[in-house]
Amino acid sequence: MQTENLNEKTDKVVSERVIRRLPRYYRFLGDIMLSGMERISSRELSEMMGLTASQIRQDLNCFGGFGQQGYGYNVRALHREIGLILGQDAPEKAVLIGVGNLGAAVSMYMETHTRGMELCSVFDSDPQKWGKRIGGLTIRSMPDDFVKVCKELSPSVAVLCVPKDAAKQMVPFLIENGIRGILNFSHYDVALDYPKLKVENVHISDSIMTLRYKMSEK
Amino acid sequence: MQTENLNEKTDKVVSERVIRRLPRYYRFLGDIMLSGMERISSRELSEMMGLTASQIRQDLNCFGGFGQQGYGYNVRALHREIGLILGQDAPEKAVLIGVGNLGAAVSMYMETHTRGMELCSVFDSDPQKWGKRIGGLTIRSMPDDFVKVCKELSPSVAVLCVPKDAAKQMVPFLIENGIRGILNFSHYDVALDYPKLKVENVHISDSIMTLRYKMSEK
Repeated sequence: MQTENLNEKTDKVVSERVIRRLPRYYRFLGDIMLSGMERISSRELSEMMGLTASQIRQDLNCFGGFGQQGYGYNVRALHREIGLILGQDAPEKAVLIGVGNLGAAVSMYMETHTRGMELCSVFDSDPQKWGKRIGGLTIRSMPDDFVKVCKELSPSVAVLCVPKDAAKQMVPFLIENGIRGILNFSHYDVALDYPKLKVENVHISDSIMTLRYKMSEK
Repeated sequence: MQTENLNEKTDKVVSERVIRRLPRYYRFLGDIMLSGMERISSRELSEMMGLTASQIRQDLNCFGGFGQQGYGYNVRALHREIGLILGQDAPEKAVLIGVGNLGAAVSMYMETHTRGMELCSVFDSDPQKWGKRIGGLTIRSMPDDFVKVCKELSPSVAVLCVPKDAAKQMVPFLIENGIRGILNFSHYDVALDYPKLKVENVHISDSIMTLRYKMSEK
């Protein structure tokens, strides 16, 4: 019988596709936990999530199992473990740059909805915005205050909500100041020019175009 | 010699992964066009985009070629054709529901940055918001005005910027009123319950979690 091995994470490299499914597991398990269910089989979970049971077993095995054959998964333990894998207990410090409409919305969102990242400051290059409040944060100056904040708080992540050209110009400066990861809302393909940066893109216009394409499909 | 066959689209089913790359081709080709370059080889394009040349040839072949061997691609023609494939010339009518911070930002974004979708109305269920302006649009009532607008304008796409439970409750009503596609910013997995709807998810919190995970990788 396979035993629970909650903390024996395997060292093998986990594919990007598996990683991309983890936040979804985490969301579903959070909801299942709230519903009061204590154990869940891979079959039940697969039906809820629209994946195959073997896919689920395979995904979770990448991180060392969690399950006990015939007994299913302990929902709370699995949720907690995936949370730990996703670093929900150890937030990275983030700063947001570019407080236009989208930047402001993302800033409010990150302040209220996010674990795993702690938004500690927001910046804009427009002097008219300096000193104004957005949620619980004050808009500070780019680049002067940015350098100070980086020295003081050592944020590791920048949330880029600026136009493409500004983003391209800005990235070397961010790296100089200790930024190692980018949540990229701009149209600049950061990862191409800086393969060592950790980059996650949110290209809303690409999603709109993809949906538009799908609307024409039979 | 392979000839240009700009309009002979093949009927074969195009994989989701190829479709997801098209908006990126479109963006890059738009920039290349602006830079004044008239022709580009698959090798040059591959270097700019971080794909292999054979990948690019394979992708573009799905839609019937566009290239002329040894001469490369005509940038303007390729950009135009991909734009046509993506429906940029024939926008779908869209409505946005849920004008919170994120909804407001997405609304402003869609009004100014988007072709292929035309945002024609925004809705909220909070009476305090009715009648207020967001960009060039007036916030209208959900569900009353929504029914009227659907009769009048027949929008096909709904942009969902409401919380998960509200989204779940709302989707059958949207379908009744003619909505066939969802740009889904909510945490509700619409596509699971309604496999016939065209759905494109923008899960910002999943992107944040994925980036958080990557930050811990060696």
